[in-house]
Amino acid sequence: MTSIGILGGGQLARMMALAGAPLGLRFLVLDSVADACAGQFAPMVVGDYTDEAALAEFASRIDIATFDFENVPAQSAQWLTDRVPVFPNPRALALTQDRLAEKTLFRELGIPVPEFADVADRAALTAAVKTIGVPCILKTRRLGYDGKGQFRLRDDRPETLDAAWAALGAQADRTGLILEAFVPFEAEASVVAVRGRDGEFRAWPLTRNWHVDGVLSASLAPAMFPADIETLAVAHARTLAEALDYVGVFALELFVRDGKLMANEIAPRVHNSGHWTIEGAETSQFQNHLRAILGLPLGSTRMVGHASMLNWIGALPDAKPVLAEAGGHWHDYGKESRAGRKVGHATLREDSAQALADALQRVGVAMRREEQVAPVIEALKR
Amino acid sequence: MTSIGILGGGQLARMMALAGAPLGLRFLVLDSVADACAGQFAPMVVGDYTDEAALAEFASRIDIATFDFENVPAQSAQWLTDRVPVFPNPRALALTQDRLAEKTLFRELGIPVPEFADVADRAALTAAVKTIGVPCILKTRRLGYDGKGQFRLRDDRPETLDAAWAALGAQADRTGLILEAFVPFEAEASVVAVRGRDGEFRAWPLTRNWHVDGVLSASLAPAMFPADIETLAVAHARTLAEALDYVGVFALELFVRDGKLMANEIAPRVHNSGHWTIEGAETSQFQNHLRAILGLPLGSTRMVGHASMLNWIGALPDAKPVLAEAGGHWHDYGKESRAGRKVGHATLREDSAQALADALQRVGVAMRREEQVAPVIEALKR
Ligand SMILES: Nc1ncnc2c1ncn2[C@@H]1O[C@H](COP(=O)(O)OP(=O)(O)OP(=O)(O)O)[C@@H](O)[C@H]1O
Ligand SMILES: Nc1ncnc2c1ncn2[C@@H]1O[C@H](COP(=O)(O)OP(=O)(O)OP(=O)(O)O)[C@@H](O)[C@H]1O
Repeated sequence: MTSIGILGGGQLARMMALAGAPLGLRFLVLDSVADACAGQFAPMVVGDYTDEAALAEFASRIDIATFDFENVPAQSAQWLTDRVPVFPNPRALALTQDRLAEKTLFRELGIPVPEFADVADRAALTAAVKTIGVPCILKTRRLGYDGKGQFRLRDDRPETLDAAWAALGAQADRTGLILEAFVPFEAEASVVAVRGRDGEFRAWPLTRNWHVDGVLSASLAPAMFPADIETLAVAHARTLAEALDYVGVFALELFVRDGKLMANEIAPRVHNSGHWTIEGAETSQFQNHLRAILGLPLGSTRMVGHASMLNWIGALPDAKPVLAEAGGHWHDYGKESRAGRKVGHATLREDSAQALADALQRVGVAMRREEQVAPVIEALKR
Repeated sequence: MTSIGILGGGQLARMMALAGAPLGLRFLVLDSVADACAGQFAPMVVGDYTDEAALAEFASRIDIATFDFENVPAQSAQWLTDRVPVFPNPRALALTQDRLAEKTLFRELGIPVPEFADVADRAALTAAVKTIGVPCILKTRRLGYDGKGQFRLRDDRPETLDAAWAALGAQADRTGLILEAFVPFEAEASVVAVRGRDGEFRAWPLTRNWHVDGVLSASLAPAMFPADIETLAVAHARTLAEALDYVGVFALELFVRDGKLMANEIAPRVHNSGHWTIEGAETSQFQNHLRAILGLPLGSTRMVGHASMLNWIGALPDAKPVLAEAGGHWHDYGKESRAGRKVGHATLREDSAQALADALQRVGVAMRREEQVAPVIEALKR
């Protein structure tokens, strides 16, 4: 009986435990809050990631550790690595926690990225805006998620730079700051992929994503982009995984502009844009992450039809329109409602692109979510 | 937040909890043993079904109750029904617990059954064998499962009847006995179906089953029988569900002989022959059981390709050959090995019958389970 420790007890940990149960695995979740939603289906240690007593109890009860949350302090990850096998490795974790290190690596590996510059202080901001031009985005280097810790600069007037600095300057010392060129992309995509302990690499079909206010709103797989884009995106993901000696599932987020790819960031964990794999692929990202870190054969990443995921943010809508759909699958994370919080998602799975577009149309109307489904339907109709 | 109580904490309860989590449900399992495998993913009350204190605690913490085990004493089911909604209803449970009552109902509803007779004592056995003829099977009326509590009579010599009586006669008072004609069937099949609180009825495609020593060994769906057999089988299942005012998932086990159907028994719960629905159908039997008892819209029962389930009895074989199959899915119930115990299963899912036959062939050879897969492959090749 193998016991998997998961740092972080959110919906990713919860879905991982549910996907790992059929492999005969047991789980233990470490989270600082006692009502973390993964705790509804797995035993928990309640404590902070930096609390050594909690970490020690956690480590003593598990055979191997992984993350549902990438912003675990590098020190905690290292502490754990000295005691149990930890996947992905803390170096990969540390690198992907830092947008500057990450983008520097992308560039070294020949993966195109938007122009970027480190911003150490207010003067560096002025200089960076001059080099990169506008529009651009000031972001925290570390600890950002769901578009938090970002400020868009539409012009280079001093007032605009002051406003950006007022919003994020105080964090320059704690998290660091980075300025990126704003990419007027036609589309966003992600490669969700898995790499085994033996180096075997598999990617799910390319996923197309739509964000609203920096948070994922909808996904579509297959993305229905030209085959050469998909091939290149997957090649980039593989290059990165090998460079990081990555083990487990990760997502590479990309922009598509003028038919060309640019990397945005890498998430060193199962990813929201891979939730459709639960029903839409032969093996889900959650089970494959576990297979990978345990050194088991990786499961097939082939699609089963066409799938689209809709994210529920803040509060769950009424499930009935999704449950009434033949291809409708509901995912309630068992969380309390809270503004901006990811509380659930739905996946629609159908055998053809047309049937999926029709299902999205019906669900969009019934749930009064026409805006959320519209871009996905449009992408399917091309 | 709705809390579902499950009487019985075996693999059926475990898979139900895993399938119900995405609906945002919580679970509480009542079982007499503390290490019941469902307890790895759901909180438990440990106690006997007849222990009123345990039942009271259980009832106080749930909104609705169901079963993973049909042999719950009718009295316990009734006690619970007076406190919380219980599905299926105790009358359906009681009726399906008794092979005599069940077969009598089948006959009343015009569903063909093998000849049968109540056997109250040794003299009644002689009389019943005379009427029914040989070969025939003596079975306990109640509390039988996985072929336990059965004795086959190949001839009608007095020694044979004495041996049958020596094996089961002692149970005549406690469980009752029934004699059934032995059916030299060409095939066994089951209808796994679900009925909602509003009477909506849906059946998964007909499943073909193979038993070894009275225990399910392999299943195949779709069963690949002529359409008229499937239509009739589903009609029988619907007739029964309506007669019992049944709510939830159940299985109707059938024999096929000379292209005709005969009913064997009804299982008032999710069923081993429906395990393939986890990967092979749009909605699994486990989630649909929960949707049904909660009055939610029923999920689609359409197939996703062709599926075959292989049961693991006693001890788990090495998972690798199944995990290495593109369409291979592993289910380890987290139980200790024990002779005759159902400890797990595998499902192979492929888009075509030919691909499924090929996958079964590879798995059969790699696992040295040629005998287990052979009849399924043969059925696929017709
Ligand atoms: N340089 C950019 N140009 C254009 N849009 C951008 C840029 N950077 C971010 N965005 C938009 O904001 C979204 C979120 O940005 P990013 O991925 O950097 O944030 P995050 O907080 O790490 O989010 P996540 O939780 O998705 O990882 C992107 O998916 C994209 O829609
Ligand atoms: N009358 C019969 N004629 C031929 N075979 C029979 C007969 N009754 C039972 N069998 C064989 O034994 C198997 C198990 O019998 P039955 O379903 O009555 O037992 P059970 O203990 O209730 O099993 P389960 O756990 O599958 O419900 C059947 O699937 C069939 O293979």
